[in-house]
Amino acid sequence: MPEHNAASRLRLSGLCFLLQILNILLFAVFVRYSPESSSSLCSPQPNCSRRNQDPGFQHPRFWDVHLQVLLGFGLLVAFLGRYGPGSVAISILLVSFAIQWAILIQGFLYFFLNGKISVGAGSMVSADFCTAAVLISTGAVLGRVNPVQMLLLALLEVTLCSLTEYLLLSLMGVSDSGRSLTVHIFGAYFGLMVSRILHQPHIDKRKREDQQDMGHQPDVFAVVGTIYLWTFWPSFTSATAVQDSAEPWAVLNTYFSLVASTMATVILSPVLYEESTPRMVQIQDATLAGAAVMGMAGDMLVTPFGALIAGFLAGLICPLGFRFFTPVLHSRLKIQDTCGVHNVHGLPGILGALLGVLLTLLATADTYGDRLELVFPLVARGSRTAADQAFWQLCALPLTLLLAALGGCLTGAILKTKALRSPPDKGNLESTVLWEV
Amino acid sequence: MPEHNAASRLRLSGLCFLLQILNILLFAVFVRYSPESSSSLCSPQPNCSRRNQDPGFQHPRFWDVHLQVLLGFGLLVAFLGRYGPGSVAISILLVSFAIQWAILIQGFLYFFLNGKISVGAGSMVSADFCTAAVLISTGAVLGRVNPVQMLLLALLEVTLCSLTEYLLLSLMGVSDSGRSLTVHIFGAYFGLMVSRILHQPHIDKRKREDQQDMGHQPDVFAVVGTIYLWTFWPSFTSATAVQDSAEPWAVLNTYFSLVASTMATVILSPVLYEESTPRMVQIQDATLAGAAVMGMAGDMLVTPFGALIAGFLAGLICPLGFRFFTPVLHSRLKIQDTCGVHNVHGLPGILGALLGVLLTLLATADTYGDRLELVFPLVARGSRTAADQAFWQLCALPLTLLLAALGGCLTGAILKTKALRSPPDKGNLESTVLWEV
Amino acid sequence: MPEHNAASRLRLSGLCFLLQILNILLFAVFVRYSPESSSSLCSPQPNCSRRNQDPGFQHPRFWDVHLQVLLGFGLLVAFLGRYGPGSVAISILLVSFAIQWAILIQGFLYFFLNGKISVGAGSMVSADFCTAAVLISTGAVLGRVNPVQMLLLALLEVTLCSLTEYLLLSLMGVSDSGRSLTVHIFGAYFGLMVSRILHQPHIDKRKREDQQDMGHQPDVFAVVGTIYLWTFWPSFTSATAVQDSAEPWAVLNTYFSLVASTMATVILSPVLYEESTPRMVQIQDATLAGAAVMGMAGDMLVTPFGALIAGFLAGLICPLGFRFFTPVLHSRLKIQDTCGVHNVHGLPGILGALLGVLLTLLATADTYGDRLELVFPLVARGSRTAADQAFWQLCALPLTLLLAALGGCLTGAILKTKALRSPPDKGNLESTVLWEV
Repeated sequence: MPEHNAASRLRLSGLCFLLQILNILLFAVFVRYSPESSSSLCSPQPNCSRRNQDPGFQHPRFWDVHLQVLLGFGLLVAFLGRYGPGSVAISILLVSFAIQWAILIQGFLYFFLNGKISVGAGSMVSADFCTAAVLISTGAVLGRVNPVQMLLLALLEVTLCSLTEYLLLSLMGVSDSGRSLTVHIFGAYFGLMVSRILHQPHIDKRKREDQQDMGHQPDVFAVVGTIYLWTFWPSFTSATAVQDSAEPWAVLNTYFSLVASTMATVILSPVLYEESTPRMVQIQDATLAGAAVMGMAGDMLVTPFGALIAGFLAGLICPLGFRFFTPVLHSRLKIQDTCGVHNVHGLPGILGALLGVLLTLLATADTYGDRLELVFPLVARGSRTAADQAFWQLCALPLTLLLAALGGCLTGAILKTKALRSPPDKGNLESTVLWEV
Repeated sequence: MPEHNAASRLRLSGLCFLLQILNILLFAVFVRYSPESSSSLCSPQPNCSRRNQDPGFQHPRFWDVHLQVLLGFGLLVAFLGRYGPGSVAISILLVSFAIQWAILIQGFLYFFLNGKISVGAGSMVSADFCTAAVLISTGAVLGRVNPVQMLLLALLEVTLCSLTEYLLLSLMGVSDSGRSLTVHIFGAYFGLMVSRILHQPHIDKRKREDQQDMGHQPDVFAVVGTIYLWTFWPSFTSATAVQDSAEPWAVLNTYFSLVASTMATVILSPVLYEESTPRMVQIQDATLAGAAVMGMAGDMLVTPFGALIAGFLAGLICPLGFRFFTPVLHSRLKIQDTCGVHNVHGLPGILGALLGVLLTLLATADTYGDRLELVFPLVARGSRTAADQAFWQLCALPLTLLLAALGGCLTGAILKTKALRSPPDKGNLESTVLWEV
Repeated sequence: MPEHNAASRLRLSGLCFLLQILNILLFAVFVRYSPESSSSLCSPQPNCSRRNQDPGFQHPRFWDVHLQVLLGFGLLVAFLGRYGPGSVAISILLVSFAIQWAILIQGFLYFFLNGKISVGAGSMVSADFCTAAVLISTGAVLGRVNPVQMLLLALLEVTLCSLTEYLLLSLMGVSDSGRSLTVHIFGAYFGLMVSRILHQPHIDKRKREDQQDMGHQPDVFAVVGTIYLWTFWPSFTSATAVQDSAEPWAVLNTYFSLVASTMATVILSPVLYEESTPRMVQIQDATLAGAAVMGMAGDMLVTPFGALIAGFLAGLICPLGFRFFTPVLHSRLKIQDTCGVHNVHGLPGILGALLGVLLTLLATADTYGDRLELVFPLVARGSRTAADQAFWQLCALPLTLLLAALGGCLTGAILKTKALRSPPDKGNLESTVLWEV
């Protein structure tokens, strides 16, 4: 066995080495700091105007940038509540690689000028959004893939997610400032599809027991994770909200949504389970769901009670999904979902996208005022009517689902190749790999 | 017993449902985003001028808003050190409800115009202050009330606390930017009074043992809570400090106070107890006390050594209170104080208020310069002398104590009604309710 | 034994009391808030001009100030992963004392005018830098000194560190915005030298076993510490970066460095140890090393791939140091290094300083543009050539090492005096002092 272990250890080490050298070389050839990154305001330069036309890449303020890079860690901490500290080392490795790779891929798509990629605060934020999608997908397959497979999953998903985002935000002109579509929905369904392809019948039973055991772990991480999310998520949702002026609404909407989804979980939990109060993990899931539902709509809602209702619905959907949907997914569709990303990101994300379509349909210059230009630039400039914009927003939803599913299938098939699978004594090795505490 | 449990579970669920539906309806009818919330600076509009006259509700900067909402969680984490992760789910439920309710109540008092409440960043901050008072009161009765009682306590305390705040800050013109009076003192004595009314002799002994056991828990939460408080509290104290220009002093004063109160605890701890160094929980209490003492005075202190002395005294009062005052409270006055809020918030808050009176008396246009307008607007405009202002500040203290005590009595009496008390097997149920880990 | 214990307890208590009274008196006599601290921008006043000439003390924005004070706690949390929560109480005591003392000492050096020290946001930041150096030194001797010795170590190191900083930054005009020299290198080698002087042969064996046990502790603190560092460190490195305009580069450079050093540790860890993935503590060390290497160079790097390469090298040096250098230090040089500060702060700091020299040599007005004035004010004003500046930067490195070693010797010799050593039953007492959980 020692040779097997040594080979497996060195395989991860070697892959990381190759990828890091590749990243350094590509950065050396292509990536430069953009001159604007040295000034916090976008000066009226030629290469700046192009970015202004692109609704997805505004210049966020410095502080938002800083906080964005926290999101991945919010998710990390959140997943810890379900899966223990053993997986953090791998997750930080994924974040480290995915941020570099996303800067390269998105740089080629958006910021490529005269043979160089201009990197600034804005590219860090969008790279981080992409990393969040990778972490969500990882949540679906955690415990059933080895680190080498995870790195390749990150490599492929970052590429596909960036292409999807480019298609939706830049080519189709969809408004999605909090990334309901390309982070929450794409990440969740991509991960579920990979999980379906990697399905292996004989491991199921053991895992189900594992999962039940997790529920009884002390909730330290769930507590820290929930507080972290409440603290930093609202500013995440609003990070790419177009400008200072639009921001406070997105933040307040997200707070109202969090508050209502927490109440909903407390209401539903005693009805669904034999427990008088919800466990911390459930409250944390409600927090994530309440935030996910505000992804697209956070910018668009113009009344606080709308946020309360949306958050309330998300807080109801999430525990209902865990109770009734996850078992069906597992038994009928043979899709395992380790961290329940379908209930926490998938369903609330779809709800948020549908809400966004409805709000787009109702958008008028009267209710939005100056913000119309910021939230729906194409409508404000008269090149689209609100109904047209709503149609495009609606089309974006099935398109995202389709691309996520196809991408997941492709990635799953590649990860399933024999060369990547772990040696025979898999179950054993896996646990040492993931549970090295 | 199962029926009892089911009934108890569904009672909480039903109450939450009713309250949340009520909140959504009231929000739908009354609450709208204020137009100014979209611009971070207060433009010279008619409805803005009214708020400027009100010393309690300035327009904080966006970032401060964001951080304010963290305060509640700072307190949460702080209390965890004493009472374990089991109470967090309930506390987050309380925060979720209290924020919505406070926005409504304070909206009717301050922001009501043309039949609508204008909600902006400022209302979120003051709602959060109110939530902090609720959490402090909860700290006094934790472990002896069920979740349904806690929700009703939040409902009543938010209402009474907002009325007190309106009376003090708007009608009497008291300067209290860090809310020594309406958060620390009101919250502590309200909670103590509720605790007195709910006193039940036969449960005392069991509880005292529980509390001692808590002290030996691993201090993970105390460590995280202390660091969280040091990190975020100074900006909390200064959140409603009037403008950017006044802010840094309040922040620096709070840091100096924290530093000195920590030293004081280290000095006193070996004298009072048989321990060579203080336990983390004691250092955390000193941190809270050092921050509480700066609530009113943080803005007013113009020399760093004043903050050092105030913090030093707070750091001495707090462990002395635990050693000599809490046993007296318990045995003579029959007031139990689960988290020691009297020592941590009550006594330092009173000290801070008295310090504020002294500083107001000494305030002159020379020492304050331009800041006089910001800290004591009525004095700067000549409608009051500094001595008058100090007199009002002094009157505010007994008034707050009186209103907190009356409010606590009323709330305790309501919570004691038979319908709200838990079923006979109370001790047992309680622990499952609160310790669902 | 009880008398011994009582005497030891009261000795710490008494020393704290004396130092705190001394601080309050010195603050009362000398320290006043600077009038500028009330305005966030440096107005063109006479006493302001002097500070502008001094590259080490710019006026940071308010928010950076706030976050700086977190750094110490980042380090605290980081060390917790290695040494358990028992040492936090002592560390917070050290922070509380060192901040006050550093404000006094640095005030006399920099901000002394008309017999008063003007304290503002800037002095809080530089005091905090100094505290960070103390915490790093403490990491080298943790577990082998008692609290009284630690307080005296802080007293001496703050004084010596401030003098070194004044010599380097103000007199020699060295550019070191992230304090590679005076925090990382000075702190590490000062601590190592104290550790050498305090070396006691017969305690070695017991300690080594302790340290190995630590590795198997649950990694809760390592996880929280790593996430804290990723979250807040990049803004630390850039805190004193001269102005808004220069900041984003330093932040982005630090992120790239963190990312690459994490990858490097994952690559090297399976080669050096029999483990498939690195433990969290190793990833945390890589995070610290990746940040330390950006101390001086964070401001100077103008291309992202440079930060990737520097971080990658730091991530390689750190585990190599633990594997091959620490045993040599211990067996040959009789230097124990409890938290491995030599590998985490010392070696990466030297690497960062050498990188800074190289970058200074390459600095031209073309590549830096307006930033040249901010990063190398003396070069921009023409009073030095880039080569001259590089020469001074290079000289600063051995000078820092020399001063740190001399200061460490002196401090160690004082701490070794009989009066300060613990009573005979030392091993026993120590553990109660440090592990009071």
